[in-house]
Amino acid sequence: MEKLFFRNDYSEGACQPALDVICAVNMERNIGYGEDGHSERAKDMIRSLCACPEATVEFFIGGTNVNAVAIAALLRPWEGVISPESGHINGHESGAVESYGHKILAVKTGADGKLLPEQIPPIMDYHQDTHLVKPRLVYISNATERGAVYTKGELTALYDMCVANDLLLFIDGARLAVALASPVNDLTFADMAALSHAFTIGGTKNGMLMGEALVIPAGLSELFRIKKQRGGVLAKGFLLGAQFEVLMANDAALYLENARTANDCAQALQTGLQTLGIPLLNLSPTNQIFPIVPNAWLEPLRSFVEYEIWEPLDNSRTAIRFVCSFASSIDKVETLLEKLSKL
Amino acid sequence: MEKLFFRNDYSEGACQPALDVICAVNMERNIGYGEDGHSERAKDMIRSLCACPEATVEFFIGGTNVNAVAIAALLRPWEGVISPESGHINGHESGAVESYGHKILAVKTGADGKLLPEQIPPIMDYHQDTHLVKPRLVYISNATERGAVYTKGELTALYDMCVANDLLLFIDGARLAVALASPVNDLTFADMAALSHAFTIGGTKNGMLMGEALVIPAGLSELFRIKKQRGGVLAKGFLLGAQFEVLMANDAALYLENARTANDCAQALQTGLQTLGIPLLNLSPTNQIFPIVPNAWLEPLRSFVEYEIWEPLDNSRTAIRFVCSFASSIDKVETLLEKLSKL
Amino acid sequence: MEKLFFRNDYSEGACQPALDVICAVNMERNIGYGEDGHSERAKDMIRSLCACPEATVEFFIGGTNVNAVAIAALLRPWEGVISPESGHINGHESGAVESYGHKILAVKTGADGKLLPEQIPPIMDYHQDTHLVKPRLVYISNATERGAVYTKGELTALYDMCVANDLLLFIDGARLAVALASPVNDLTFADMAALSHAFTIGGTKNGMLMGEALVIPAGLSELFRIKKQRGGVLAKGFLLGAQFEVLMANDAALYLENARTANDCAQALQTGLQTLGIPLLNLSPTNQIFPIVPNAWLEPLRSFVEYEIWEPLDNSRTAIRFVCSFASSIDKVETLLEKLSKL
Amino acid sequence: MEKLFFRNDYSEGACQPALDVICAVNMERNIGYGEDGHSERAKDMIRSLCACPEATVEFFIGGTNVNAVAIAALLRPWEGVISPESGHINGHESGAVESYGHKILAVKTGADGKLLPEQIPPIMDYHQDTHLVKPRLVYISNATERGAVYTKGELTALYDMCVANDLLLFIDGARLAVALASPVNDLTFADMAALSHAFTIGGTKNGMLMGEALVIPAGLSELFRIKKQRGGVLAKGFLLGAQFEVLMANDAALYLENARTANDCAQALQTGLQTLGIPLLNLSPTNQIFPIVPNAWLEPLRSFVEYEIWEPLDNSRTAIRFVCSFASSIDKVETLLEKLSKL
Repeated sequence: MEKLFFRNDYSEGACQPALDVICAVNMERNIGYGEDGHSERAKDMIRSLCACPEATVEFFIGGTNVNAVAIAALLRPWEGVISPESGHINGHESGAVESYGHKILAVKTGADGKLLPEQIPPIMDYHQDTHLVKPRLVYISNATERGAVYTKGELTALYDMCVANDLLLFIDGARLAVALASPVNDLTFADMAALSHAFTIGGTKNGMLMGEALVIPAGLSELFRIKKQRGGVLAKGFLLGAQFEVLMANDAALYLENARTANDCAQALQTGLQTLGIPLLNLSPTNQIFPIVPNAWLEPLRSFVEYEIWEPLDNSRTAIRFVCSFASSIDKVETLLEKLSKL
Repeated sequence: MEKLFFRNDYSEGACQPALDVICAVNMERNIGYGEDGHSERAKDMIRSLCACPEATVEFFIGGTNVNAVAIAALLRPWEGVISPESGHINGHESGAVESYGHKILAVKTGADGKLLPEQIPPIMDYHQDTHLVKPRLVYISNATERGAVYTKGELTALYDMCVANDLLLFIDGARLAVALASPVNDLTFADMAALSHAFTIGGTKNGMLMGEALVIPAGLSELFRIKKQRGGVLAKGFLLGAQFEVLMANDAALYLENARTANDCAQALQTGLQTLGIPLLNLSPTNQIFPIVPNAWLEPLRSFVEYEIWEPLDNSRTAIRFVCSFASSIDKVETLLEKLSKL
Repeated sequence: MEKLFFRNDYSEGACQPALDVICAVNMERNIGYGEDGHSERAKDMIRSLCACPEATVEFFIGGTNVNAVAIAALLRPWEGVISPESGHINGHESGAVESYGHKILAVKTGADGKLLPEQIPPIMDYHQDTHLVKPRLVYISNATERGAVYTKGELTALYDMCVANDLLLFIDGARLAVALASPVNDLTFADMAALSHAFTIGGTKNGMLMGEALVIPAGLSELFRIKKQRGGVLAKGFLLGAQFEVLMANDAALYLENARTANDCAQALQTGLQTLGIPLLNLSPTNQIFPIVPNAWLEPLRSFVEYEIWEPLDNSRTAIRFVCSFASSIDKVETLLEKLSKL
Repeated sequence: MEKLFFRNDYSEGACQPALDVICAVNMERNIGYGEDGHSERAKDMIRSLCACPEATVEFFIGGTNVNAVAIAALLRPWEGVISPESGHINGHESGAVESYGHKILAVKTGADGKLLPEQIPPIMDYHQDTHLVKPRLVYISNATERGAVYTKGELTALYDMCVANDLLLFIDGARLAVALASPVNDLTFADMAALSHAFTIGGTKNGMLMGEALVIPAGLSELFRIKKQRGGVLAKGFLLGAQFEVLMANDAALYLENARTANDCAQALQTGLQTLGIPLLNLSPTNQIFPIVPNAWLEPLRSFVEYEIWEPLDNSRTAIRFVCSFASSIDKVETLLEKLSKL
């Protein structure tokens, strides 16, 4: 019997409609580098969803690339980035932002990984000293690395604080889909555009072969050049455009449906873990779940489920991570819970 | 009736076997970031083809990315790159190499775009002045931007000159397939590895959705980190691995077959152009053909064929480019020639 | 007897008043990093001379540093620099501009090294292609590397062309003093500020221990941070301020006097060379003179004068360079001419 | 009456012998860019003092420049720097190290600012993940930012730990003089060279107009090029060479004497503060002293002494910094103590 798979949300390829469109466009002979009709239509859909017709939208092939290029495009050389210490750019991207010259000013956060508006002013005060970089951009992710979702109130407060401090707010949306599809969410795509200076719409972790859309609501005229310069342009860019076209059609129906599947499975899993009395690192309203298990379980678990070690907590307990995706099913969640109940 | 298509070799998606494998692996649940079995096997095939078991092989999603990352990985900050003036890194990559800090020392070449060994020593002499960058890497492409193919003798002479001058030789193989599959070619994959310090095996322009393999025969242990840092890692790296696995199997049978199709069509076209008395910018033994046409033809041509303006030559004549790909057919070449004969 | 010295204009230390002020401020205990009163007063003098009270003025310790930092501060990452092929940034600064990520687009010029307005539009046309860097800054030097001086008419035409093409004009003034002090000059400091987006006022080659002033007429609020970041801040910045204060007082009286000494000696030398029938690479109206001598002279010359090889012309002739400085004297020029007359 | 000055150690110019030599060499006509005889002799003295005849030695004009250039020269692009959180490169250099692409991995330390060997292995373990930068260099300063001095035992242990982890040890010696001249010191210049991969000998804060020497014991052949590229080359480099020649002669006699003056004054001050019952942030054996004073003192203090705010501790107390230099005197220390005793 095949092992259960709750390791991550980027190990399958694409959801069936996205795969179908790849096959459908295969022999269409589209113009290269993202200048094709699919890309144009998908960009228009996104501008429309975001209610910002002036937005610059570009498609990228991956999260590290889009984050680093966007930040480099938005900043001047002497400007730095405020990020939660747990931010993906700070701890998982091999120094990509720094490799383009920008210092990251890492900030400790609570267990949910959310940055709070009141954490901004002390950083700004300290960096008035011109022997330091000038903080100019705040990086957050929604959902956060711990699966938490910003409310409209929280995001508004953070955005207002950024504006008041002449800071740009950049939202990494590698897992934006599960955030927007979460029952606790009250944000729309249009809110995202209105409450940030740039954000990404992640496709890789939500049922696309690959693809992240960068949205800059106020526009940035030469974004393509830096994307080209930093290796973010896919020759056959129509592969990205065609997939986004499928996922974003009808008010992002498929994009949100994929995420709801992931969320529903994860929430069933989280509830089941609680029922079993297995403690959690934090309650997550999206597709990543963080149970705390005795170290003695780590090996036996491996025999029936693929998962990731998140963080050793002490000599006897470890936080692990289960992730659901568009390809998860309630069936498999129940099988997992049953097996866990026997440990 | 559909327009004839001779515009480039990256407007179709993938050849059928490559597309099939994408569909086949879609639900396999492979490990991310290129650590999957497909990638491992494809890398092994390439090492074996290249007869260099110690080689570091990494897959990238595009040519600009692999060129810039490889060059940055091979050089120290004060080192520069000797390149033909027509080199892709010099004129088509939006300053990617310079964006990572390295000056390109552009060298004029003949019409075929080949760099000659005797062009190296004067550059080295001039740059003994330590107020200049230190030339440390020679960039060439095979096939060149004009479709020319280096012979084993030529490449050996250039490589020897590089070694004698403590220079690394990097070969951009975005169109390596058509070079190796050309009747005038006498190089093998193993020769490429023996006669360079790094080279790429291009898939994007030879029937893959996307994918370039970087081969560093002597190995480079931390190449993955800079690839990750500079946005070259595809989360679903198995998509690259699986395609290379298919194209590189059986001594690169499919890889070379795709290229032979492109070459055969292009050669038929070139011969036909000569028969029609249409002059050529240069004779090309691969899949790109450069006819010189009267400016009065440019508009009428557009009505029946997609092509590219290469270079205006004078007030009355323009060099254009026709490109064939794995998806071209002799049929369409004949149709094109017939239509040209009526202009 | 000591050898005659016509090698360059940066081998002496400082002119006496500049040296005196270094000694005078030695124990004053000034605030560090250029925030001292000398620096403030010198900056005010420069703003006043340039008739641009809003200008940002910063002092740097050397030409390579100020050029590279200024260009990085003015450009976005995807933007490139148009420069004469002979430009100092292109050929003598070890890739400093590229090391900060910007491609230099080198342009061939006439013997005087001047860039002509009509050379701009073809470059702009070519770079509309977004697979290339966006040209955004034009770099020239005044005096040029060959000692030529831009007239107000020439500079106005170039500046207008830049503005029409959304290009910034940056003038490297490492040898601005000899340009402004030349009899052929019709530019003022105020003209320099009105006809450029940034320019430097070189002190190192005009009688200061070290020091270049960068003037950005429209202002650039965070210039200090990038100067600090890229190693351009001198801890004891008052050493720069105090020297500029002395040279720039009374409408730059000493600054121009130093340059006039250098020019007068050089012009006497150039006239003498012509009288002797020694050909010149180009006529220079400033402090650098470029005689063409038989190769057989190179060795004997070395026995009585320090000079520099400029450029071998053919098998029998070489262009050499004689340079005069604030410390040159007509006496020594006459001695040199006499000795030359005997070769 | 003039205010007492205990603000820092870079507000005076040069000690008299260094100033004298500047005047003495002013009209010597030395070769530019550090190729002069003074620089050569000073480098030889340093190689000899350090007992490493193969060392590469280069002079720089300032600390931020030498730190950033040295680190860039020693590292590959994907490599990061371990530094105490209080390290100068982390908090006072405007992101210089990051601007050259290297992530700083900041480590919390005790009050003395010393990095401990046992802090290394957990960082190395964590960064085995290739999605992170590879830690490759450890940055420390001696004396530290808090004035502490590494013992030979401590430095040996740290160096051994670095070597065991394939890490380079770089020691920022901006205040090396006061460390080596401190009574608690047991290190020699030769120890510094034997127990590090690179270190600097600071002149700016020890009685030179400007000047830092970078020593790379194992040699680095192209160091000059990157120094030139990153704006670290002083045209009149003989100004640096001549000063180092004076300070380093006779086993660094003047270099150490300047530092002893600074240390002696500071130690008298520290002892006096203790006698007065004024608490200290930490005991410092060098020229920086960190008293903790009631906030009510801050304003009155300003009326008679120049000092720096170091760090607010709570609502009522602030740590301030007094610094002594080569130009300090016991007299002034006593005046300061007397005035403090009356607060």
